[in-house]
This record gives sequence, structure tokens and C-alpha cells, in this order.
Amino acid sequence: MGVHDRLKELGIELPAPVQPVATYVRYYQTGNLLLISGTGPSAGAKPGKLGRDLTLEEGYAVARDVGINIISTINDALGGDLDRVNRVVKILGMVNSMPDFADQPKVINGCSDLMVEVFGEKGRHTRSAVGFVALPGNIAVEIEAMVELS
Amino acid sequence: MGVHDRLKELGIELPAPVQPVATYVRYYQTGNLLLISGTGPSAGAKPGKLGRDLTLEEGYAVARDVGINIISTINDALGGDLDRVNRVVKILGMVNSMPDFADQPKVINGCSDLMVEVFGEKGRHTRSAVGFVALPGNIAVEIEAMVELS
Amino acid sequence: MGVHDRLKELGIELPAPVQPVATYVRYYQTGNLLLISGTGPSAGAKPGKLGRDLTLEEGYAVARDVGINIISTINDALGGDLDRVNRVVKILGMVNSMPDFADQPKVINGCSDLMVEVFGEKGRHTRSAVGFVALPGNIAVEIEAMVELS
Repeated sequence: MGVHDRLKELGIELPAPVQPVATYVRYYQTGNLLLISGTGPSAGAKPGKLGRDLTLEEGYAVARDVGINIISTINDALGGDLDRVNRVVKILGMVNSMPDFADQPKVINGCSDLMVEVFGEKGRHTRSAVGFVALPGNIAVEIEAMVELS
Repeated sequence: MGVHDRLKELGIELPAPVQPVATYVRYYQTGNLLLISGTGPSAGAKPGKLGRDLTLEEGYAVARDVGINIISTINDALGGDLDRVNRVVKILGMVNSMPDFADQPKVINGCSDLMVEVFGEKGRHTRSAVGFVALPGNIAVEIEAMVELS
Repeated sequence: MGVHDRLKELGIELPAPVQPVATYVRYYQTGNLLLISGTGPSAGAKPGKLGRDLTLEEGYAVARDVGINIISTINDALGGDLDRVNRVVKILGMVNSMPDFADQPKVINGCSDLMVEVFGEKGRHTRSAVGFVALPGNIAVEIEAMVELS
């Protein structure tokens, strides 16, 4: 089954790719590696810090939303051919955190689980999931990614 | 126009490359990718946290200064031949931040804008620009970079 | 001298590789680059934040312990053949930090020094060593790595 069919099966509709808010590009391909800039959630997502403003479940949902935006960017970079994704190599999961919040992995699972749901084994990646004192615009989660293309 | 001519036109003089403060190297080339260690500003730069100690304009200036130090390191790595830079692939912009500071992208633009001024389209990169609770020696900005060589 | 002999000489016994605590993989090889997920210390390591809960010496020891876990993962990825490590390319040293703690490089040296002790010149890497407001499970240090294979 192709990745777009899989997305349909999961009921996921890719939004228009997020536009950069400053002097940078959303993605760049070097060799067979596609690098995706730090990506935030959709406009309506709940902002704030984990450990104070969002529950774990809300954080997980934001991370999943970020993951959908990343897939939208990959789709845009590949001219719609998501089947060229050979492997999600790595993500850096950045969680807007209070100093005593220590469940960053459970939050970023919202993105990691999505990648496996959508890409299967090709979606299993290396990662770090860690706490940042502040993120742009007070978003709860930002994630950057590296993808291997076939 | 070569990159060194462009630097002259911009009135930028490259300082001596920043030396590591510990057990690491400033750069390493693997394949055609040049990786640059996390780089700080020059000795005289204003230290401290954005959202308390530096204005946005001061933060932007520090990020630009960091960018000049990164170009100096690239220049050193390439034996002076900056025209071998085919693309600035990625930067990680680390901003020493108070918990309620949310304008990291505007700070890191100081480096991103510089890269485009100096390298043109080859300077346009992917990036994350996010908030760190503390940076070495209380510097305001630290940036690491990945550059594609021709 | 092979790397395993060097480890024996240093009195380092590799522990069983750390297992992921969530939906991700510990390592992935793309081309000749081996990427290692963010890795924490062993179970008994002192948790908490630098600048409050751990001294510099204790932080250094935790970073060294993390480094041993990373080498254990590399060893696992290479089926025991650590001599295939051509270079430790890069590490990202993440230090659980109080806002006024500014000695992240001295902490991460615990890992960087180890890499040079174990791999010699091949262990010298690029890096960033910076402060995070919170890390998973309140560990004091987390490190991710990129290794070039021969």
C-alpha cells in the first residue's frame, strides 16, 4: 500500500506546508538525505509549557500534529511522492518544559508513533526528546527531522 | 564575485578562528559535509539571557557576530577557499532564554541573514531556533552548522 | 591495539546496551554514518540538575558513564567490531541545568575525554555542550552522537 493510501486509511489529511517565519528554508536535500527545519504545530494547537499548561495527552496530540506538518513538508519536497521515503533517520523532539517536567519521551511519542503508523518500519527513527526552556511563539512542541530517500 | 570580495564589500573582516575551550575540534569534514561545532560570539559580546539581559536588537547583533565566527571557521577549514561552500545546509540556533522569551527566530536571523548576505542563495539553510536555559560562560547565543562543499 | 584491548586496558567493561524507553531505535546507519539516539546514564547514576543537585565532578562522571553507554551501543550496532569506527564525528551534549549554571563544556568533557582515551585521534569530534531546562526522568546528562564508519 502506498503512503498516501495509508494516510487516507488513517484519516489524515495533509495540511498546506507550514511556511518559514524567518530567513530560512523548510527543507533541503543533500545527497539522499532530506533535512527538515524545526517545525511547529498548526495554528489552533494549544500553546504553553508541559508541566504547567498542557497535560501529557495534550502534549502528545501537539507532537502528532507537528508530525503531520513534517510529513506535509516531506510531501512537498518530494513533489507528492511520499513513497520515496526510505527511512525516517532521526528526529530532534523539543518540548517546551517546566524545570520539573521529565516526560519528554511520552510527549514526542505523538510524532514517533505517527511516523511508524504512516511509514511502517521505514518510520522507525533515532531521536532525542528533551526539555527546552522556551520555544518560538510559546508553542508546546517543535521537531526537526532527517529523512533518507530512495 | 567571490565570497572574500563579498565580505570586503560588506565591511566584514574575519577574526582569527575561535579556539575550542575543551576536548573537541572546531570542525570535521565527512564526505562533502563540513560540520562546525557549537560556536559562540567574540570576547566583547554582551552576555546573558534574552528576555532579561539583552534586547532583541542586541541578541540579533550577537547572532550575527556568531555567524561571522562560523564563517571564519569555515574559511580556516577550507584553507581560505570560501568559494567551495556549495550550501549552508543547516544551523541549530541556541538562544540563552528566560522562560517567557519566545522570539528566538528573530534573534537567530542575525546569523541567517548574514549567511544569505555573504553566500547568496547558497546561504539559505534549514534551521531550528530555540530557547536554552543556560549556555557555556553565559553567552547569549551559540550556533552549530552543517555546510555542503563542492 | 584494537579498541576492545584499549577498553580492557582502561578497565572499562561495556554494559548491555541501553534499551529505548519509547517508540524509537537506538541507532541507524545511513551511508557510512551511524547515528546514535540520545543516550542517558546507567540506572544507578545520580539524577538532577547541574548547579543544584550535582557537583561538576559528579556531572563529569555521569557524562563519562553516558559515553560508555554510547560505545556499548556502537559496539552492538557493529556486531562487536569497534575497530570499524573511523571517527566520532559529532556529539550533542545535553546538560540538565539550573539557569545560572554555565559550565556545560566541563561536564560534557566526561564523554569527550573518554572518546579520545578509547578511540585516540579517531575519537576527537565536533560538539555542542549546552543547558537544557529538563531531561527525561530527570537524568543529569543525555548525549546523542554521529559516528563515521570505515
